[in-house]
Amino acid sequence: MSKILVFGHQNPDTDAIGAAISFAYLQKELGKETEAVALGAPSEETQYALDYFNVDAPRIVESATGETTQVILVDHNEFQQSISDIADLTILAVVDHHRIANFETADPLYYRAEPVGCTCTIILKMFKENNVTIPKQIAGMMVSAIVSDTLLFKSPTCTQEDIDAANELASIAEINLNGYGLDMLKAGTNLSDKSAETLLDLDAKSFPMGAKNVRIAQVNTVDLNEVLARQTELEVAMKNENATNDYDLFVLIVTNILNSDSELLVIGDSLDKVEAAFNVTLDNNRAFLNGVVSRKKQVVPQLTEAFS
Amino acid sequence: MSKILVFGHQNPDTDAIGAAISFAYLQKELGKETEAVALGAPSEETQYALDYFNVDAPRIVESATGETTQVILVDHNEFQQSISDIADLTILAVVDHHRIANFETADPLYYRAEPVGCTCTIILKMFKENNVTIPKQIAGMMVSAIVSDTLLFKSPTCTQEDIDAANELASIAEINLNGYGLDMLKAGTNLSDKSAETLLDLDAKSFPMGAKNVRIAQVNTVDLNEVLARQTELEVAMKNENATNDYDLFVLIVTNILNSDSELLVIGDSLDKVEAAFNVTLDNNRAFLNGVVSRKKQVVPQLTEAFS
Repeated sequence: MSKILVFGHQNPDTDAIGAAISFAYLQKELGKETEAVALGAPSEETQYALDYFNVDAPRIVESATGETTQVILVDHNEFQQSISDIADLTILAVVDHHRIANFETADPLYYRAEPVGCTCTIILKMFKENNVTIPKQIAGMMVSAIVSDTLLFKSPTCTQEDIDAANELASIAEINLNGYGLDMLKAGTNLSDKSAETLLDLDAKSFPMGAKNVRIAQVNTVDLNEVLARQTELEVAMKNENATNDYDLFVLIVTNILNSDSELLVIGDSLDKVEAAFNVTLDNNRAFLNGVVSRKKQVVPQLTEAFS
Repeated sequence: MSKILVFGHQNPDTDAIGAAISFAYLQKELGKETEAVALGAPSEETQYALDYFNVDAPRIVESATGETTQVILVDHNEFQQSISDIADLTILAVVDHHRIANFETADPLYYRAEPVGCTCTIILKMFKENNVTIPKQIAGMMVSAIVSDTLLFKSPTCTQEDIDAANELASIAEINLNGYGLDMLKAGTNLSDKSAETLLDLDAKSFPMGAKNVRIAQVNTVDLNEVLARQTELEVAMKNENATNDYDLFVLIVTNILNSDSELLVIGDSLDKVEAAFNVTLDNNRAFLNGVVSRKKQVVPQLTEAFS
């Protein structure tokens, strides 16, 4: 049996990388030959966690063919968010906490999804079900993933299970959860030295909606105005992205992680659908979304519904 | 919150009904308002189990709209095998052991699939994870489902987990596993008094493969010749089914549950794909498939591959 590659989605966030590292470790302990890899470089937030817990960043891959035919997906399932040759590979397992779409297999597989805030919350449960002890470094990456995905428990995607899991993992990782968590989140908000193109690609995913191809990017900040001061530059970059990649609509969500609000900036077709989805009127391609911090729960379903 | 309907696939087999009954019971014990329903009448095999354990057959429904918006799927996920208005409903959870295809949700959900022989094997695990005691009647329906799906452990889909689960459930249900199992399977092989149309509909599922719509039906027997003596009548009925339902290809698998072999009878387009899939030459629209008993593992993937 060839090696099994374990990876999260493209433009990996801390959960995509933390879940790959921790699930590959669990499967190795259960006797499988696995390697955690990533479909992109770690963000500054993720790098903060890797450095803090002295964990190597996973090797970056673009395809699996030639190396293996067997893969495990974590923190995603939609093929357009996955490895480039996903359709040619055998997916042995998926552990995820997103909607299921654009996903198909020829054979039965192991699929574990739960509507919780973070993949690592589910993986903690699987460590326990299999009676495998979690090392400090692995627990550190897992708690970092939960802090990241739930914005330190402020996201509406956060459940009591996520909070309990984070506290349990923080204890194994020997960290002060709130202190470490805020430092890690802030490490990801260093946006000023990044080009508009880089900002748009930090945490971006594509979603087919109706007949349209919608790109939704999110950046976290502690100062909305710092990002919005660059609106003209961002709009040019968004138009270029749409033209180059055949996106019909580019949605940028700029999220203030301290206030738990977002500003929306959109470029492309179907702006009326965006207005309908969020019950707002766009002004200068922008709208303020009070209390919106979760792409998964407060953006994707609303836009999907508007396009259906 | 409105009631949650729990059901298996169309043309329900013993697992579709046993899994719905047992998972609805588990969820009720966990505080959810659930009702097990079915998308069709029980087969004679399933009715044997229901009578033996004194369990009422689930109410038959064709759609959920008007009654509830919330459903749980067991033993299937593909929309074309599900309730007629599945696309308009909120799927809260899926427990299944098939490939994933033609399945999509707008929101995250609970999804538990494992590559084991029977849905009830997974449900037993979930009873244990939640520390819920299984009543004798429920255990009886669950062990019946495992016997049915694995053909008393002879199917290649059967895993050690299924065998262990069946033995554990047989003990709760107070049955002799082999004696009860064979009696139940034989109860499902009474084919002589059924019309060709009824035979073709006993356990039939549709699968989109490439651009084609493929219908695959399976009947169990203890005497292949008894069924094949009706070939002309069956072929007429298969042609009618294709014409009426826009199936491009109708595949009938007649399985001898004592010898664990099958005879294939096919009508429609793309017969060359069938020959390629099973590495056989059709003679008089038929081919013998040595050791083939599992549609899921020995028919669907091979045909899917041939059509891809």
